Amino acid sequence: MSVSGFAVDLGGTKTAAARIEDGQVVVRLQKATDGSAELDAQVRVIADLLAELGYAHGEPLGVAVTGRVDRHGDWHAINTGTLRGISAAPLGATLRARFGARAHCANDAAAAALAEARLGAGRGAYNFAYLTVSTGVGGGLVLGGRLIDSGNGLAGHVGFAGSRLGDQRCGSGRFGTVESVAGGRAIAAAAGLHDARSVFEHGGFELLIDRSAAAIAGLIGDLTAILGLDRVAVGGSIGLAPGYLARVLGHLQDEPALFRPEVVPAELTHDSGLIGALLIAQETAGG
Amino acid sequence: MSVSGFAVDLGGTKTAAARIEDGQVVVRLQKATDGSAELDAQVRVIADLLAELGYAHGEPLGVAVTGRVDRHGDWHAINTGTLRGISAAPLGATLRARFGARAHCANDAAAAALAEARLGAGRGAYNFAYLTVSTGVGGGLVLGGRLIDSGNGLAGHVGFAGSRLGDQRCGSGRFGTVESVAGGRAIAAAAGLHDARSVFEHGGFELLIDRSAAAIAGLIGDLTAILGLDRVAVGGSIGLAPGYLARVLGHLQDEPALFRPEVVPAELTHDSGLIGALLIAQETAGG
Repeated sequence: MSVSGFAVDLGGTKTAAARIEDGQVVVRLQKATDGSAELDAQVRVIADLLAELGYAHGEPLGVAVTGRVDRHGDWHAINTGTLRGISAAPLGATLRARFGARAHCANDAAAAALAEARLGAGRGAYNFAYLTVSTGVGGGLVLGGRLIDSGNGLAGHVGFAGSRLGDQRCGSGRFGTVESVAGGRAIAAAAGLHDARSVFEHGGFELLIDRSAAAIAGLIGDLTAILGLDRVAVGGSIGLAPGYLARVLGHLQDEPALFRPEVVPAELTHDSGLIGALLIAQETAGG
Repeated sequence: MSVSGFAVDLGGTKTAAARIEDGQVVVRLQKATDGSAELDAQVRVIADLLAELGYAHGEPLGVAVTGRVDRHGDWHAINTGTLRGISAAPLGATLRARFGARAHCANDAAAAALAEARLGAGRGAYNFAYLTVSTGVGGGLVLGGRLIDSGNGLAGHVGFAGSRLGDQRCGSGRFGTVESVAGGRAIAAAAGLHDARSVFEHGGFELLIDRSAAAIAGLIGDLTAILGLDRVAVGGSIGLAPGYLARVLGHLQDEPALFRPEVVPAELTHDSGLIGALLIAQETAGG
């Protein structure tokens, strides 16, 4: 299948749109995301970016977003305040109304996982996990060639699994999660700094960074026990920071051999959400 | 598909063989397992039981065993002593040589998971996990209708995932696993007794049993974060012991709503490994 069409990555800080040909991003545009905007306003921004790229109604379009996307294409934020009586934005229906039946939305880390599995660091693996370590910790699972999905859109939110090092609650409301130890927000909070970038810039927080890497190594061991993974790719701003993956691999040496899959850096970096969203749109349409 | 044929469950203490018609065990025979016997001797016992059941060479046959069964049908024990340079018994090849091309082998908990998914407590679920809490803790995952397998046969060994309550090593060699807290062997060791049955018979070990249930609740939360489960069935001699599931459900109430799938008792109990092994043999042949 030729991976060609359009894709959007609607993130917390920026909205990127791209024209993709043969699995490569050939033109990419982006704008700052207005976090306070309603769904309709965000779809207008998407439409403006797509128009600049030459998108015509009805062409294949994949849209990656942070948070849960359920089986109806409804979009849910994940945080403690909204877990009960969560409000669902009808993202899928809105996209189809505006851009046609070939528009689909998906979780950004799930999209990245599928892109890495098909075109990047996961090629040739049978059971593959993609982990992104950034402000939070997310991921996606491609098992026997199939991206694991779920009715509620929670599948792949591996950062909300428990960590033996956890002693805090993360935004999901769960106590002691991997994200509550390994994510940039958690590292920064423990360091008393504003964001994880400052942690890496300041230096002197080796123990916190090492604890993050140890939690990710534990997660890799857990996922391997549960799923029999043969390869894991690690991405994200922290996951790809110099020296981080080596720390993860060091901690993984404490595991018995059976629980140590191949662990490699992600290959498609900031394009993986875009390419994967288009892949999901194409495979959903074809499936 | 009609689930009819023959199946064997080769366990640590007994070897059961059954004739199955329309998904029901119609005749069942069993013998004590000789744990010290070589593979060939065990296959002779299987052949004798099958002959008594009227099995003819070439008929569909599923064989469930404890331990890992890899993609080649080679059978590996999982324990600390043998993790490196583990010896692989060519169970699949031996069964095919003796009983024909329609003989297949699989992990017993994976087989039980598939049986529950198709004919028992997992019917109608999209992402389903079966957990067995017995001497050890095992399981199997049926996601989007497909039993999750892996090249090394490790997939579904959910008892080897980490527990936030763990402070011991289990037979897999991993530290702090769910099995090291929740399994009967672990409970008995903590109680200073010979086996878990005595723990339940003696009474007075409520805290240890409750700690086991809490570890299983944590595992259910973790699996739900990772896989977006909609239903979990709990089986095994401890899992089905009176009051145990209620304790699990009690601890699960500490989780945010998103991480609380439906949790039900297993339905097929001691026939699930047999029925599932035959299902795997049939689906492998047809797939």
